[in-house]
Amino acid sequence: MSPKSGTPKKNLMLFSGRAHPELAEEVAKHLNITITPQTAHNFANGEIFVRFQESVRGCDAFVLQSHPQPINEWVMEQLIMVDALKRASAKRITVIMPFYPYARQDKKHKGREPISARLIADLFKTAGADRIMTVDLHTAQIQGFFDGPVDHLLAQNVLADHINNTYAEHEITVVSPDSGRVRLAEKWAEQLGNKPIAFIHKTRDPDKPNQAVANRVVGKVEGRLCVLIDDMIDTGGTIVKATEALLNEGASDVVIASTHGILSDPATERLSNCKAREVILTNTLPIPEEKRFPGLTVLSIAPLLARAIQQVFEDGSVTSLFDGQA
Amino acid sequence: MSPKSGTPKKNLMLFSGRAHPELAEEVAKHLNITITPQTAHNFANGEIFVRFQESVRGCDAFVLQSHPQPINEWVMEQLIMVDALKRASAKRITVIMPFYPYARQDKKHKGREPISARLIADLFKTAGADRIMTVDLHTAQIQGFFDGPVDHLLAQNVLADHINNTYAEHEITVVSPDSGRVRLAEKWAEQLGNKPIAFIHKTRDPDKPNQAVANRVVGKVEGRLCVLIDDMIDTGGTIVKATEALLNEGASDVVIASTHGILSDPATERLSNCKAREVILTNTLPIPEEKRFPGLTVLSIAPLLARAIQQVFEDGSVTSLFDGQA
Amino acid sequence: MSPKSGTPKKNLMLFSGRAHPELAEEVAKHLNITITPQTAHNFANGEIFVRFQESVRGCDAFVLQSHPQPINEWVMEQLIMVDALKRASAKRITVIMPFYPYARQDKKHKGREPISARLIADLFKTAGADRIMTVDLHTAQIQGFFDGPVDHLLAQNVLADHINNTYAEHEITVVSPDSGRVRLAEKWAEQLGNKPIAFIHKTRDPDKPNQAVANRVVGKVEGRLCVLIDDMIDTGGTIVKATEALLNEGASDVVIASTHGILSDPATERLSNCKAREVILTNTLPIPEEKRFPGLTVLSIAPLLARAIQQVFEDGSVTSLFDGQA
Amino acid sequence: MSPKSGTPKKNLMLFSGRAHPELAEEVAKHLNITITPQTAHNFANGEIFVRFQESVRGCDAFVLQSHPQPINEWVMEQLIMVDALKRASAKRITVIMPFYPYARQDKKHKGREPISARLIADLFKTAGADRIMTVDLHTAQIQGFFDGPVDHLLAQNVLADHINNTYAEHEITVVSPDSGRVRLAEKWAEQLGNKPIAFIHKTRDPDKPNQAVANRVVGKVEGRLCVLIDDMIDTGGTIVKATEALLNEGASDVVIASTHGILSDPATERLSNCKAREVILTNTLPIPEEKRFPGLTVLSIAPLLARAIQQVFEDGSVTSLFDGQA
Amino acid sequence: MSPKSGTPKKNLMLFSGRAHPELAEEVAKHLNITITPQTAHNFANGEIFVRFQESVRGCDAFVLQSHPQPINEWVMEQLIMVDALKRASAKRITVIMPFYPYARQDKKHKGREPISARLIADLFKTAGADRIMTVDLHTAQIQGFFDGPVDHLLAQNVLADHINNTYAEHEITVVSPDSGRVRLAEKWAEQLGNKPIAFIHKTRDPDKPNQAVANRVVGKVEGRLCVLIDDMIDTGGTIVKATEALLNEGASDVVIASTHGILSDPATERLSNCKAREVILTNTLPIPEEKRFPGLTVLSIAPLLARAIQQVFEDGSVTSLFDGQA
Amino acid sequence: MSPKSGTPKKNLMLFSGRAHPELAEEVAKHLNITITPQTAHNFANGEIFVRFQESVRGCDAFVLQSHPQPINEWVMEQLIMVDALKRASAKRITVIMPFYPYARQDKKHKGREPISARLIADLFKTAGADRIMTVDLHTAQIQGFFDGPVDHLLAQNVLADHINNTYAEHEITVVSPDSGRVRLAEKWAEQLGNKPIAFIHKTRDPDKPNQAVANRVVGKVEGRLCVLIDDMIDTGGTIVKATEALLNEGASDVVIASTHGILSDPATERLSNCKAREVILTNTLPIPEEKRFPGLTVLSIAPLLARAIQQVFEDGSVTSLFDGQA
Repeated sequence: MSPKSGTPKKNLMLFSGRAHPELAEEVAKHLNITITPQTAHNFANGEIFVRFQESVRGCDAFVLQSHPQPINEWVMEQLIMVDALKRASAKRITVIMPFYPYARQDKKHKGREPISARLIADLFKTAGADRIMTVDLHTAQIQGFFDGPVDHLLAQNVLADHINNTYAEHEITVVSPDSGRVRLAEKWAEQLGNKPIAFIHKTRDPDKPNQAVANRVVGKVEGRLCVLIDDMIDTGGTIVKATEALLNEGASDVVIASTHGILSDPATERLSNCKAREVILTNTLPIPEEKRFPGLTVLSIAPLLARAIQQVFEDGSVTSLFDGQA
Repeated sequence: MSPKSGTPKKNLMLFSGRAHPELAEEVAKHLNITITPQTAHNFANGEIFVRFQESVRGCDAFVLQSHPQPINEWVMEQLIMVDALKRASAKRITVIMPFYPYARQDKKHKGREPISARLIADLFKTAGADRIMTVDLHTAQIQGFFDGPVDHLLAQNVLADHINNTYAEHEITVVSPDSGRVRLAEKWAEQLGNKPIAFIHKTRDPDKPNQAVANRVVGKVEGRLCVLIDDMIDTGGTIVKATEALLNEGASDVVIASTHGILSDPATERLSNCKAREVILTNTLPIPEEKRFPGLTVLSIAPLLARAIQQVFEDGSVTSLFDGQA
Repeated sequence: MSPKSGTPKKNLMLFSGRAHPELAEEVAKHLNITITPQTAHNFANGEIFVRFQESVRGCDAFVLQSHPQPINEWVMEQLIMVDALKRASAKRITVIMPFYPYARQDKKHKGREPISARLIADLFKTAGADRIMTVDLHTAQIQGFFDGPVDHLLAQNVLADHINNTYAEHEITVVSPDSGRVRLAEKWAEQLGNKPIAFIHKTRDPDKPNQAVANRVVGKVEGRLCVLIDDMIDTGGTIVKATEALLNEGASDVVIASTHGILSDPATERLSNCKAREVILTNTLPIPEEKRFPGLTVLSIAPLLARAIQQVFEDGSVTSLFDGQA
Repeated sequence: MSPKSGTPKKNLMLFSGRAHPELAEEVAKHLNITITPQTAHNFANGEIFVRFQESVRGCDAFVLQSHPQPINEWVMEQLIMVDALKRASAKRITVIMPFYPYARQDKKHKGREPISARLIADLFKTAGADRIMTVDLHTAQIQGFFDGPVDHLLAQNVLADHINNTYAEHEITVVSPDSGRVRLAEKWAEQLGNKPIAFIHKTRDPDKPNQAVANRVVGKVEGRLCVLIDDMIDTGGTIVKATEALLNEGASDVVIASTHGILSDPATERLSNCKAREVILTNTLPIPEEKRFPGLTVLSIAPLLARAIQQVFEDGSVTSLFDGQA
Repeated sequence: MSPKSGTPKKNLMLFSGRAHPELAEEVAKHLNITITPQTAHNFANGEIFVRFQESVRGCDAFVLQSHPQPINEWVMEQLIMVDALKRASAKRITVIMPFYPYARQDKKHKGREPISARLIADLFKTAGADRIMTVDLHTAQIQGFFDGPVDHLLAQNVLADHINNTYAEHEITVVSPDSGRVRLAEKWAEQLGNKPIAFIHKTRDPDKPNQAVANRVVGKVEGRLCVLIDDMIDTGGTIVKATEALLNEGASDVVIASTHGILSDPATERLSNCKAREVILTNTLPIPEEKRFPGLTVLSIAPLLARAIQQVFEDGSVTSLFDGQA
Repeated sequence: MSPKSGTPKKNLMLFSGRAHPELAEEVAKHLNITITPQTAHNFANGEIFVRFQESVRGCDAFVLQSHPQPINEWVMEQLIMVDALKRASAKRITVIMPFYPYARQDKKHKGREPISARLIADLFKTAGADRIMTVDLHTAQIQGFFDGPVDHLLAQNVLADHINNTYAEHEITVVSPDSGRVRLAEKWAEQLGNKPIAFIHKTRDPDKPNQAVANRVVGKVEGRLCVLIDDMIDTGGTIVKATEALLNEGASDVVIASTHGILSDPATERLSNCKAREVILTNTLPIPEEKRFPGLTVLSIAPLLARAIQQVFEDGSVTSLFDGQA
């Protein structure tokens, strides 16, 4: 081959952080590729070292990291991987964060706070990220925090299919566990077939001033199967109290569905003891054996990620995967 | 004075775009200053020209523009003013947008859409803005679109005081006109004294498949004074239908409260014909005589802006004005 | 196809703002392609919404917008289109502005003015533009305002061909309507075959102090066909007074040639009433029927734009189209 | 003093490159300050080293460099000085370039050329410059190349005063040596009292096809004192040919006035041999003894620079010094 | 006070991350100020939250964080603190990192590695840091990784004073534990009074090919007190082997001196068991009780940091504290 | 070919500055291509002009410049070439600097100094460089000064091969001429087969206070062939004194090896008069006839550069050429 001219090749390479290798393996299998081998370890003082064992020059790099505990560790590892790819001449770098870290700090709730979700976007941009791929953002506005393309995938589809298949014959009400997720509940309600919705309103009763906050159910739930939805379950406190409130209001049953299973202590204990009939999560975050319990269903996000990667690589356009990003 | 050293002075200067000079005048009066005189006009082909008539070197510049129709005109004028201030050596430039333009395009609703609210933040950053001051953002996440300090003022306080004074003796329910503003309704409910809340759920009844979308009221409103809240009223369609739905459900009365009175046609007609007892707005946008109607109350945002400007200038910290930005 | 590697494709897509769809259609026809379909409209309060109806991932995007009245509207629409393309993963974005907006504000004429032509370049860079294509800049220095490639096309060639064909047998003098366009007149003179040049000097006669400004013709025009040239005609005042001055000095006839026909009121009235034999413009800006008049010739810029787009797409090099940018 | 709070001081410091220390000394004297002592030398391989001998923390730094031959050397020295100031915590850095280097490469004359004047602006921005101060730019558009304030001083005033004082009783015509400076001639003409203007048109006579380019005088000069103006004199070829053309056309006398005396060989020889009555320059560039000749007048730019520095330091506003930058 | 003009105040505020509060307290005491109170905690999933409890508008902020294990946690906390300060209108933000994290990854040792030390600098710049203050960088070139002022303090002075006081009467040789720190040893040797130097050369003996790497002492150490120096002690392997090699070569005694006591396992065990007479460290990193051992001396870096902060705040210039940054 | 879609081509183009055209020619020959023809000259006042004579649209551009005296001239020329390529739509721009200019100013040695090596990286980034290729950096940390990929080639391999071939049978000690290059000596020692190392320690003897600095050899050199290595030889003072010291200590012979032959006066005189048996350099810098002397061997770096260019163009991965950048 003459050195002077030619046709460029494009080359998909998948990289995996150490937080959730099983998910990356599963994605790779769906793509029929292998994860690029790398050296990654912590030095004695905790500093992370990463080195790729193959040339990455000119590749279309997809860097998958999950963000469970210790979350800051995994953020830093992914930043370092991106820096290494940039300096090794990767052509394009797509950062895949199935669970977007710090998504809940997406605004200042009071004065003198950070907006850490924006900071995360800026840190990855600075490190060298060209694009971000993520799943079910806490608020869709986070897309606007990144100065470039964001592929916002919807795991809600995966969860809703499961519910449709399992509870088709029930009278369903979709319930938001607080006032901030009512819009989300409305979207679910539409997807499950124009179901009614309700939500839990936390309030002090003004007529009984010394009493504690009460969880009042707003909307009709009596005798119905309540699908209690949220984007993430952290310690499970809110969702379990919502379950109780619904059952107290006469709901026939409660099914909990959420994309991101953070399951910080004591979530597993709370969820396994609560009266919900089923808890449905995805594996955007690893859910290890010790956090699992009877009644828990974990659906895989890997097929969705794999199809999205394939499309991004091929500049394809299967908009059904996306929430308006194709 | 020797040329070599000295003590820097700081100098507050207020600049006003042409969209809403009355508001700027009112703010200036509260600050006991005069608006910096300027030449501003459109050339024959519509290009805008601005020139300041006094030196602005080293000043602490506050550039106030309102954003009614033609909104793109006023955005461009404010950008040009900022560019002129940057090139004329203003020390710090704070852009005041009482109504943040394009706030509703804060995410991609479907694929291949812009995120215009982020674009607006970036355009002002590029032109030279150091800070942004704004009132009652459509979503608080927009704060994170700007790479720098954002003073997010709450006109809700101004509106709620009026309601507390006027309707103290009523049984109030706070109502969100759709599922996306329920959290906001909850905040209002708290501010008005832990009132109950409700919202309007737009849905198709799955049991009556050929019927149109219905506005179902979720929550108890019967016999109560409903305070129907929103951040902005554009054509008024949603808020007027919500009013009807509330009255149909037996609400004793409806009061509408909203910060931003866009009042695009046919808002005035709709609002003046609807059965709401009072419509309360602020003047973040100009509300000209021809758009006013009986039952409309317009509260001034000028005192709030003036106090915020004073504090920013003095590096003061009266957090009560702010939603977490002091 | 294996997901792992392949050959990238390149894909030309043409996008059109709403200011001058006829020009875009004409360009598309020359390129034998169709304009990418899109949704574009204004919300009730004037905010612009754009959405592309096909995937634009990986495409080589050319975004054509013309900039007549309301000019700020069209600037903002084009910025929003670029933002949407960036976020939808277009590979390269070329902004086509046949008439560069705010080109006349390319410097500070006095203190405390903006340099809006630079601001325009920065705004498009920020929105996501990689390149700019434009025609007959008011001053060539504007190329340097953009941090990236600028394709500066010359419509002068199109106009000069018409003049050469029509007035070959006349004794031509090329005339600049003021002192700032004499260099341009010299270029025209060269292109028309080393013709003599003249210009109009606006001055007060120092010997008659109370008299108004006079338009003195500097150079010989008596008995000659004067080709009066300019880059743009806005209200037509200067060019019509220059026409009068030339005829007063004994010019046998005047032909006006200009690339950009802004034709703000009362340009059409002035031009149709003046004694010029022909007024020659291009369609870089739309010239609607009501602005046309006998004696007006409008030449199409579309073939030039189409050839330039084709070359940029193919990395070709037909320098004859360009003013030194191939 | 308690460490916790206080009043900031501002401190003017003047720094001088090695290209023209006399000018810096003169400016310092006018400001009644001393130039900050520094070590500056070239290493054996030509690399430049600079170190300031006093703390510059928090100072308002003015970095004066002139740009004669070897011009790239002096550009690099000034960049390095700015880098050192940035890293040593200067509060604000104003780059003073009395003669803006590469100003003539302010656009692409043909394809595949740099726009070096923009590059210069970007290099200084990158090094750490906050502002630029310069004198009589080749084209005023260069102001727009820098992303920040540019103080554009007019030496034309200094030169015109000298002419007004010396040649008050003459019948003056202001002459541009080519078609590109006619606008400048018009400004001079106004400043000298609404004088008539003329220019030299370089052309081939189309009627005498085999003849070389001729310098045709456009405008009336017979029997008048011609003030031939330009922003810079490099080798002097154009200006000397223009002088000849004017005398051939019957001009009674020629006076040459130009801000920047580059005087590259053989300018001194040409100018001293030409028939011009006086050549007036300023010292924006050093004019060493060996380049001087009878009939040369060199006016000092130092008072203008000193007043401008003082104003910038004090945020003052004496617009008479500036061409629209106060 | 009139709102329109005044004299700015400057206000020093000290902020402390949670990694080493004792150091921050000590610095505050030296400065006679209090650390700004803040809320800082981890959410259940490990995400960090920070909120300052006082207004920071316009302050000169110094953000002190130490970087022991878990190091990525503390980096992220400091980034988030900087983001919060930027958004709360701090005037200037100085990041204090007594031990610069990832300093050892300051270059690519092999292909496809990150340069994490540069990444750290860029991350802090992006978050909003204006300046960096640090102590005894692993390599001085890291100063150049940050685009802004870096105050590089030398703890070596603190350590050397202790040695001079304690071992004045000994015959000292300064020893570098490997070939990369010989220059550092030379600086120490100079500071201790032109002492001789030596270093440990790790090598395979080419004449005995099957033998392991040997630590050869290069330089004369017999009968002398060896001051074995390094910038940091991590697991202590290198330094302890160097101690053995020196004693084997006949050194009379070994004293170990190092700025940064990382002391990762099994450093404490190794150091307490080795034959070194004294190990001298500073508290740039916390050295908890369980890591201490007989023979360990910990000197405080707080007075040095406090003086440096005071100078930066006052724009002072006590260069003796600095390694060339005053 | 239809205009709408196709397969992109990639096209390697090599550009050469005027500092060392022979090296570029040699590289071109190895690549079997021709250097892109260009116009490059200095205007009368020293300003550089460059224009490429072929279209460079879409090319993969490699811009080779060497940096001998006048070094600032060649830096500026290369910056201007990069600017021209950027504006002419080159797809990727790799700056090749075989000798990285200002590499020795890679940190602040004392206060108020520049970090010129970082400045160089930033200037090229600003001009438009995407990548840097360089040879044997003074310190490897300079890689981290550029925000992007750096291909750091090792000429040490070329030099070591020559030594291995020529002096295989000698007892070799590798010697660093000062304390800062001992690590480098260690790498050489390894490459030459685990040789022993030594270095020269410049010191005052503390026991003889009035005596001058002495060059003490640390390590054993008696009776051995000393390979004295350094990355560059400027005036040769250090290396020649080191040679003397080694011979005084009983070295049997000295061979000097260095990548960059700056050879500023009086290097040639010193080296030709010193007792070294051979001086081995490469042609990263031009070594003209008048600087050559008996005993000098100049090895060509062109094959290394050509192979690296080929690999970068093809996204290949021959890591043997690189020091960890493949």
